[in-house]
Amino acid sequence: MKSLIQFALHTVFLCLLLSSGFANADEDGTSFPKLREQYYRDHPGKGKFAQHWDAIPIQNYWNPKNFYKPPVSVPGEFKREMCVSCHQSLTPGAYHAWKESTHSNLEAIRSLSDPNDPRYYKKQKLADIERNLVQQSLLKEGEKLTEVGCIDCHGKVNAESIEHDKALVMPDRASCGTCHVGEFAEAESEKEQEWPQKQWDKGHPSHAVDWKANVETSIWAAMPEREIAQGCDQCHYQQNKCDGCHTRHTFSVVEARQPEACATCHNGVDHNEFENYMTSKHGTVYQTLGKKNWDFEAPLKDALTKGKYTAPTCQYCHFEADGQFSHNLVKKARWAFNPTTAIADNLKHPWFEERKELWVKTCSNCHSKTFAESALEAADKGTIAGIKVEQEAKKVVQDLFNEGLLTGQKTNRPQPPTPEKDAAGGFFQLFWSKGNNPSRIERIYADMWEHDLIKLYKGIFHNNPGGFTYTEGWSPLLRDYAEIMDENTRLRDEAKQAKPDYQQYIPAVLIGLGGLLILGYVLIRRRP
Amino acid sequence: MKSLIQFALHTVFLCLLLSSGFANADEDGTSFPKLREQYYRDHPGKGKFAQHWDAIPIQNYWNPKNFYKPPVSVPGEFKREMCVSCHQSLTPGAYHAWKESTHSNLEAIRSLSDPNDPRYYKKQKLADIERNLVQQSLLKEGEKLTEVGCIDCHGKVNAESIEHDKALVMPDRASCGTCHVGEFAEAESEKEQEWPQKQWDKGHPSHAVDWKANVETSIWAAMPEREIAQGCDQCHYQQNKCDGCHTRHTFSVVEARQPEACATCHNGVDHNEFENYMTSKHGTVYQTLGKKNWDFEAPLKDALTKGKYTAPTCQYCHFEADGQFSHNLVKKARWAFNPTTAIADNLKHPWFEERKELWVKTCSNCHSKTFAESALEAADKGTIAGIKVEQEAKKVVQDLFNEGLLTGQKTNRPQPPTPEKDAAGGFFQLFWSKGNNPSRIERIYADMWEHDLIKLYKGIFHNNPGGFTYTEGWSPLLRDYAEIMDENTRLRDEAKQAKPDYQQYIPAVLIGLGGLLILGYVLIRRRP
Amino acid sequence: MKSLIQFALHTVFLCLLLSSGFANADEDGTSFPKLREQYYRDHPGKGKFAQHWDAIPIQNYWNPKNFYKPPVSVPGEFKREMCVSCHQSLTPGAYHAWKESTHSNLEAIRSLSDPNDPRYYKKQKLADIERNLVQQSLLKEGEKLTEVGCIDCHGKVNAESIEHDKALVMPDRASCGTCHVGEFAEAESEKEQEWPQKQWDKGHPSHAVDWKANVETSIWAAMPEREIAQGCDQCHYQQNKCDGCHTRHTFSVVEARQPEACATCHNGVDHNEFENYMTSKHGTVYQTLGKKNWDFEAPLKDALTKGKYTAPTCQYCHFEADGQFSHNLVKKARWAFNPTTAIADNLKHPWFEERKELWVKTCSNCHSKTFAESALEAADKGTIAGIKVEQEAKKVVQDLFNEGLLTGQKTNRPQPPTPEKDAAGGFFQLFWSKGNNPSRIERIYADMWEHDLIKLYKGIFHNNPGGFTYTEGWSPLLRDYAEIMDENTRLRDEAKQAKPDYQQYIPAVLIGLGGLLILGYVLIRRRP
Repeated sequence: MKSLIQFALHTVFLCLLLSSGFANADEDGTSFPKLREQYYRDHPGKGKFAQHWDAIPIQNYWNPKNFYKPPVSVPGEFKREMCVSCHQSLTPGAYHAWKESTHSNLEAIRSLSDPNDPRYYKKQKLADIERNLVQQSLLKEGEKLTEVGCIDCHGKVNAESIEHDKALVMPDRASCGTCHVGEFAEAESEKEQEWPQKQWDKGHPSHAVDWKANVETSIWAAMPEREIAQGCDQCHYQQNKCDGCHTRHTFSVVEARQPEACATCHNGVDHNEFENYMTSKHGTVYQTLGKKNWDFEAPLKDALTKGKYTAPTCQYCHFEADGQFSHNLVKKARWAFNPTTAIADNLKHPWFEERKELWVKTCSNCHSKTFAESALEAADKGTIAGIKVEQEAKKVVQDLFNEGLLTGQKTNRPQPPTPEKDAAGGFFQLFWSKGNNPSRIERIYADMWEHDLIKLYKGIFHNNPGGFTYTEGWSPLLRDYAEIMDENTRLRDEAKQAKPDYQQYIPAVLIGLGGLLILGYVLIRRRP
Repeated sequence: MKSLIQFALHTVFLCLLLSSGFANADEDGTSFPKLREQYYRDHPGKGKFAQHWDAIPIQNYWNPKNFYKPPVSVPGEFKREMCVSCHQSLTPGAYHAWKESTHSNLEAIRSLSDPNDPRYYKKQKLADIERNLVQQSLLKEGEKLTEVGCIDCHGKVNAESIEHDKALVMPDRASCGTCHVGEFAEAESEKEQEWPQKQWDKGHPSHAVDWKANVETSIWAAMPEREIAQGCDQCHYQQNKCDGCHTRHTFSVVEARQPEACATCHNGVDHNEFENYMTSKHGTVYQTLGKKNWDFEAPLKDALTKGKYTAPTCQYCHFEADGQFSHNLVKKARWAFNPTTAIADNLKHPWFEERKELWVKTCSNCHSKTFAESALEAADKGTIAGIKVEQEAKKVVQDLFNEGLLTGQKTNRPQPPTPEKDAAGGFFQLFWSKGNNPSRIERIYADMWEHDLIKLYKGIFHNNPGGFTYTEGWSPLLRDYAEIMDENTRLRDEAKQAKPDYQQYIPAVLIGLGGLLILGYVLIRRRP
Repeated sequence: MKSLIQFALHTVFLCLLLSSGFANADEDGTSFPKLREQYYRDHPGKGKFAQHWDAIPIQNYWNPKNFYKPPVSVPGEFKREMCVSCHQSLTPGAYHAWKESTHSNLEAIRSLSDPNDPRYYKKQKLADIERNLVQQSLLKEGEKLTEVGCIDCHGKVNAESIEHDKALVMPDRASCGTCHVGEFAEAESEKEQEWPQKQWDKGHPSHAVDWKANVETSIWAAMPEREIAQGCDQCHYQQNKCDGCHTRHTFSVVEARQPEACATCHNGVDHNEFENYMTSKHGTVYQTLGKKNWDFEAPLKDALTKGKYTAPTCQYCHFEADGQFSHNLVKKARWAFNPTTAIADNLKHPWFEERKELWVKTCSNCHSKTFAESALEAADKGTIAGIKVEQEAKKVVQDLFNEGLLTGQKTNRPQPPTPEKDAAGGFFQLFWSKGNNPSRIERIYADMWEHDLIKLYKGIFHNNPGGFTYTEGWSPLLRDYAEIMDENTRLRDEAKQAKPDYQQYIPAVLIGLGGLLILGYVLIRRRP
């Protein structure tokens, strides 16, 4: 009888998991251990350039699994309550943030009774989590979680005490995934993405492999300035941790559902999505009406109803695919990080066409299908227009490099540090420079493809007019094009000038020789 | 008797219209048809460069009157209720936005009873609209509008059904103006603006002619990349539609009264008003106190009282003129879009002086008259200081062009596409480039006058210190000046170097000739 | 007996003052007059370059003590009530802002009864202020302040009437300090800061001497464009007034405790702290959770409890030192305005080490000590990495200057206006330019040290990844480095080319001379 009930509950649980996009969880309840095992197996640690760099202290926190060691300064075993009471004095900010969180007050969730409360969905989630913990033997059958306190994440779920100098951990994705299995599975499923013409390696680009992408970028590993390099880590750690969006120690979904949650990483010269969103009409509606009236306690699937959204957020469009919301954000990726000919030339391939269809469906939440298709078509073609300009400039720079005509190329071009390799207008030239490497024209080209072109693409797809026509994108792209063309003309003129001009001696030589000839003639005639 | 009452009501109506800034409405109630007729008569359609460009699909939406066709994919006649119920499933975001709007719930307005409610003014507005619709025979005498639903704007006001594949329209200014006659009239009155020394064409620059300004800009029409060109349309469509500020489908005045409503268009390199406002003290008070405490339901005339504003918004200063608020935003325009000598040299003309006085009055809402005058004087003089620098640079670039000394000018200067014409440092060079057109120095100059100088002007008038002295404006202007001067010196030096230097032959030629002369003498003397 | 009570009250008062960081107030109650006297004694007025510039009208407001004159246009004596009633019509915005303020309704403070009200602390503050005013004989013993109206600040505290054309003042720091003695003392205490190796003059850089820093900057005094120069004043007036953070006429602490209050000045190319904060995780939590949930009525010391902060604001970290909050913002200054070798080389000095310890303590409010130390170490080393690049570029530019090789250096290099002096890549070149001063390479270098390097430093210390690695900071620094290196190579190549190449004449001269020699020989041989 008991197992029948268990089976029934199990079935309900799985249905709920599946319906919430948790398609990867195994049916036998072993999903989390498998997920965790695979998560660690996929993790690159220091990556293939490991011998080229050493972690500096702050990196212990960007990749705790590989680098973090508990502090020896606080030895001894501490009970659950002691963690909280001690850190209330030691790190009051962290304590109060936690105190404001759902983690500190699970009873508030358990006692929700109004199905119209936008947080009502959390009640079921909590029950699911507890059931899952039972299956992992972290909770006894029938036991309730009273809170998620320091020890549960920095030690072990439901532990009674912790050896502070030996067992303390900084939580990683798997720590959070212990309870939040569905979200963990969704997020990890980004690794399954495969590009039809190998435009990107499997799983790339995505949050699920962003640490790998980071440490296996040759210039990142090569940079002698490790304190600058760890600036990249400050975003490229989503593969390691979940607090990039759900900031410790509130781990708030209300925070994570607002566009600013994406802003720390998705801004700036080579991925200005946040700026594009905020000054698009989507973003200005969010700012004028959303901030005050929308309810971010509502899950994304209820955004239009309980959430009262009247415009999309970043999350509303990018967590969605085919009407379902999940932590897999790459299901509709097409141009992905940056526009390339390898993508432009294959947009008619079914892989791309299907994803375009998914986008049409997303936009059609608010717009007509025709509008959506027209907007996406314009964005594709506008992006391709930018690629064309960039490719022309690329050839100019490559030719100069091949002919050895770049400024200082023959006299003052140090090689980049290992494992980076020299190349005209390479990515590394944005982060490393010495002598005349890069030359001016190369750096302009590096900015062009990595900044202007990407901003053109991001701006046009986010419907931010100034963000792709004049302030960012097209107009800066043409400025860099004009710079490159001007420089090309001058470098080639200079090369011509620098050749010793032997012609200049011709008149003098001719006259001199003429004189000698006549002289010789005279002398010969003079002979008696 | 009936006509007496009608007359009385009519008079009340007109007084209300007039008092709300609706000065252009005719007294006989025929105002809307006349307005509409004039609106279409003034509209340029594809404009004078029509033969040079074709509309791409997305432009159907930026200028629906000229380009939009109903979708053949959804044939048949649909009743009012069917529109709503069908689109509730098809485009739920649009539905919910509308459901949150005043349009969907006119009863909430009609039932307002507290005169202190900031929305109370809408009650009268609704009565006026209904009266006006009666006059247009769109509503029966005594009939009430129950809602403004899909069909009222996408078909016809108060219609019962619509032929979806034949009669569906995307609303234009006149559609909204059918009900909102006063606002329509106010907005259209921008076309009456005339500049005393023809600095701008009649009505320019203004929202009321921004589509005309767009399509009759030669480089816009000339650009082969139509998907980029439509980026301009994404702002330059205010002449066509009202949802640039009142975003569909809430059409919210609360939205439109907040500065972010202006942000999508009024930001960036050549019109950074939003950025200037937001980091001015006006904007920081809005952000710190306004967002939470001010009531944007209050109309602008009640902003200080019911609205509790303690600092101005964009709307508070720019919709106002002489104490009245309207949708004519150019009544106080002086420097308008960009600073020119044609304006600088005429600031003492009464036209400009009167407008300056209007500004003093605006600022005097909060500041002393003396403060206002001092600030405006500083802003005028600071702007003129910028013009001086820009004009000096202009001459340098023009001279190089006239002398043929620009990089590649004689070897690699393709002409811009028709109907654009070549010019040194022209506007077109911000959006089109090929070979050495523009040369580097021209593009710098184009950025200088179109970006730096405008940002200097916008920054100083919006009281944003960094926005006109160091981050934007003056300091970038001087950087471009320095670039231009440096380039000028080098282009002229290079030109000198490139000239064949005949002087170098002089010594050899002299010596050779000397030798010949002596030889000749010898030969002659040798003659017997 | 009375004096005993007075003594007791006095003691309580002083304890309160001291406990609120008001360490500078004298024990005998004469603190304010002394403070005021010292404030005026320290004030530079027009400063050491006074003879080089004249105040323009708007500057009357940036430094009212030195420049403001009451308006003669409004003569006569006006009573307290008349000020308010007249300005309610004349400047309604100012009136309503004041009406929303605590100043207009002191009774609301006096009647606070709930100690849990975050504003409760103001009740004691009001009592302290009244006591202090009694001591200054501005209030009678037992008299209560009913309001702080126009006359109290623009005339004299508690005055009954004012001669509008003779006695009207624009309030300065001392005006506010009359009541807010503690805050005045705290703010003035910034002047006591002394740098161990004289990296900065005593008291610099700080809000307390920012006007002096402004008027004694040679290029500021030298600039002919006074309307541009006053752009600097628009921030550099904190030494003169308090409304830079507490905007008139609400003078709100709620405003001043929010990051946007700092934004008007602390943004942009050479001090982008606001941008860095806003897109750091600190700032995004503030935007997503803080704006709605935190209570800015709570004083900073109660920020985590009554204020419910879950992340820091600008104010929370920069007003704090060793657990105490005050208006002295420089107690933890280390790199201060800009990174220099003079600081980098001395970071091990106890002065710097102690301040670093204070920062560790600040960060430890939320983070572990180890995290804090690691983050600060990375920030220090990252900043030093930037200095190294900048110093290499500096030498290149200085050498070119010393060798006279800068573009136009020998032909077209006007001297900057007095009292500025010429220098390679000087600060003045950001704000003044003429002919080839600065040359292109110098301006790039000026941008490099004043913008890129500072932004690298600000970004890394504010934990904004893109703010120091790619969008601002390191990558732009390397771009400018590459530009400078490229320019250096080319300027030196050009210099080589430009030298008259006498070698080219050698063949012709030799041949010519050879011809002459042979001729001479022939002639000699011909002699009979």
